Amino acid sequence: MNTVDIINQVVLKNKLSKEQIVYFVKEAVSGKIPDYQVAAFLMAVRCQGLSNNNTSILTREMEFSGDVINLSGIKGVKLDKHSTGGVGDKASLIIVPLVAACGGKVAKLSGKGLGHTGGTIDKLESIPGFNTEIDIDKFSEIVNSVGGAIIGATGNLVPADKMFYALRDVTASVESISLIASSIMSKKLASGADAILLDVKCGSGAFMKTPQTAKELAEVMIHIGRDNGKKMAAFITNMDIPLGYNIGNALEVEESIRTLKNIGPEDLTHECVEAAGVMLYLGGKVDSVEAGENRAKQALFDGSAFAKFREIVQAQGGDLSYIDNTTKLLGNKKSYDVVSLESGFINKMDTLEIGMSSVMLKAGRVTKTDKLDYLAGITIYKKTGDKIKKGQKLATLYAQDESLFPAAADRFLKAFVIDSKLDEENIWPLMLHKIV
Amino acid sequence: MNTVDIINQVVLKNKLSKEQIVYFVKEAVSGKIPDYQVAAFLMAVRCQGLSNNNTSILTREMEFSGDVINLSGIKGVKLDKHSTGGVGDKASLIIVPLVAACGGKVAKLSGKGLGHTGGTIDKLESIPGFNTEIDIDKFSEIVNSVGGAIIGATGNLVPADKMFYALRDVTASVESISLIASSIMSKKLASGADAILLDVKCGSGAFMKTPQTAKELAEVMIHIGRDNGKKMAAFITNMDIPLGYNIGNALEVEESIRTLKNIGPEDLTHECVEAAGVMLYLGGKVDSVEAGENRAKQALFDGSAFAKFREIVQAQGGDLSYIDNTTKLLGNKKSYDVVSLESGFINKMDTLEIGMSSVMLKAGRVTKTDKLDYLAGITIYKKTGDKIKKGQKLATLYAQDESLFPAAADRFLKAFVIDSKLDEENIWPLMLHKIV
Repeated sequence: MNTVDIINQVVLKNKLSKEQIVYFVKEAVSGKIPDYQVAAFLMAVRCQGLSNNNTSILTREMEFSGDVINLSGIKGVKLDKHSTGGVGDKASLIIVPLVAACGGKVAKLSGKGLGHTGGTIDKLESIPGFNTEIDIDKFSEIVNSVGGAIIGATGNLVPADKMFYALRDVTASVESISLIASSIMSKKLASGADAILLDVKCGSGAFMKTPQTAKELAEVMIHIGRDNGKKMAAFITNMDIPLGYNIGNALEVEESIRTLKNIGPEDLTHECVEAAGVMLYLGGKVDSVEAGENRAKQALFDGSAFAKFREIVQAQGGDLSYIDNTTKLLGNKKSYDVVSLESGFINKMDTLEIGMSSVMLKAGRVTKTDKLDYLAGITIYKKTGDKIKKGQKLATLYAQDESLFPAAADRFLKAFVIDSKLDEENIWPLMLHKIV
Repeated sequence: MNTVDIINQVVLKNKLSKEQIVYFVKEAVSGKIPDYQVAAFLMAVRCQGLSNNNTSILTREMEFSGDVINLSGIKGVKLDKHSTGGVGDKASLIIVPLVAACGGKVAKLSGKGLGHTGGTIDKLESIPGFNTEIDIDKFSEIVNSVGGAIIGATGNLVPADKMFYALRDVTASVESISLIASSIMSKKLASGADAILLDVKCGSGAFMKTPQTAKELAEVMIHIGRDNGKKMAAFITNMDIPLGYNIGNALEVEESIRTLKNIGPEDLTHECVEAAGVMLYLGGKVDSVEAGENRAKQALFDGSAFAKFREIVQAQGGDLSYIDNTTKLLGNKKSYDVVSLESGFINKMDTLEIGMSSVMLKAGRVTKTDKLDYLAGITIYKKTGDKIKKGQKLATLYAQDESLFPAAADRFLKAFVIDSKLDEENIWPLMLHKIV
């Protein structure tokens, strides 16, 4: 097998054979193919693309480059949900108990946040005692008995992705649909679920900047999943606007609790109901997505969704007093109001910049080893499409270290575009596309 | 300066700033940019191309990455000629004395052969005593007094090209017009001539497989040269057919001598006259290319071209008895006739394969350290367009080691496509295009 020939075939947009892909991933991970050849391969894929069939084979080989999680201890269809990452995206915290309350089995593996996007694991760890490092046997046991659990990935999961991503990051090869799809899906396949709902975010605060590329990414990931025997569905959702109003770890848990009690923001509630509907349908619990949505609405209404969240927190060692008394969860922190400098309509929010201002408050990380302030974050009062007056409060920033406020507020304010007229044409809805 | 951003700009087909290119070449050569980033940059250039302006800046920075040759000791316009490499391409051996005989100053730096293409230095070294390792002062002195000299490049010339080429070779990034052009032209610029005629070969035995891509390459190289103050011209010539009839080092010197005596093959004579015409025009020795061609024809006819060749050989220490008696030059070697297995017309010759069969006879090298048999090679009797009968001699192979003949003959024969009808439409002329 000739590595130069493999790279050359990618440049020429010829299909690689299965043997070539198997060889490449295996030898790259073992270090037998030098970094510069792996980098050239990844750049060739970024520039020339890779067929869906080849991307699917690549993903499967990446999956098996390390440990794979065996969830066979869980009875029934094992459901998972994955968001490509956004700002204020606390949907998993709501969807997992919501689906579990309706009889689904949700085995969710999550990550920590980095850069402007938060991580579900960080959010849950703002609940004192909540343990996200649980072994697979215990995890399976909780999913069987409670219906859902959320843990961080452990073990040597998809080392090929770790290696490829580290190289892509320093060689300008991150922004490739084939490589993003294989990175996400190799980890999802290795995580062992039977059915996966993807939430592909698009807009300023997302990997994918346009609905078109987001849809393309979703379609490739669905192809990979189905090709590997998984039930798949995807949402393309707008990340030009944060989901809900709270950004920050404890702040997002608090907003999730309100949503699970059916008194949360409408946008967040609606998206979670739609997601639960699809997942219940994929899990065979209902005959249609609509029936799933109705069951989910009922679970929010009758209190069973929130009750399920308490069960999960308890099963994973979290202190329920913080859930039952969210004032305790939100803790003692400093606050700083940000007011609008103009009057008019909010026509745009740069969610990447909003996410970065929350990172400046220590609600997120710049590097993997940064320590978080779980109480830090932002509560937004006005979002894209809203009218605002000069001097009116746009948001409140929170942090334990008040010296961080001025710079974060400055960055936050600059993320808004306020005009005298509402630019309705260029404001996207929250749900851009569904593939079920 | 951010290396990842530089690579990303290439992927996005945005122009790089001069500062970005200066930084990239300098830091890459000094080893501060790791190999995997250099490889990613080169692959991005291969896939996305680079603007002519950026290619020109890149070439100039490559030129100055090491020593540059100072030819200011040579009076008048210093002429050079460069072939992208072919099979049986002995044109430089003829053109240098031919132009010098007509009053031009030809300061030719050449390389050794590798793979299927021969090297002018190897050919000259088949003349006992001929010294191609002469310092620049002495070289300039010979060019001043004799009118021409041919030496190998010494010193630390264009280390950036050595580094880039080594990486391109193992990462499938060789076949990029921008990178081929910058590789060739950085060396030509560093060699110090004022005017350069490029002979861009195209066909099976050349880098460029089609007249279209060869022309594209020629145009980029001309742009680079002119952008850097050089007088430039280019030929696009057919390398689907060997030039002349002899392939191999002493064999090609012998054919060159015949050509300089005006009794050589017509195709070779014609191309050399055309080249000399252009070079004399670039050097300001004549008012038109046609006038230059006429003067060159005269020099072949009146014996001054061959006399000039003798002068150059003498000045560079070569033993003239081998020039005056070519039987001595051709030496004692074994021979092996190859006969046609079919009757018909030769519609195609794969010159790459013919070049490789001569390498099998040790007329060329597989690796840089291989020892050559200067006497080895091939004399071809029939070329593309010719009629041949079954059992008629196609060629004679020569080597000192006769055990090499059967395998080389087999490979040689397979390079021919012989059909019952002449496929005139698909047979290219020797001269495909001229840019003056």
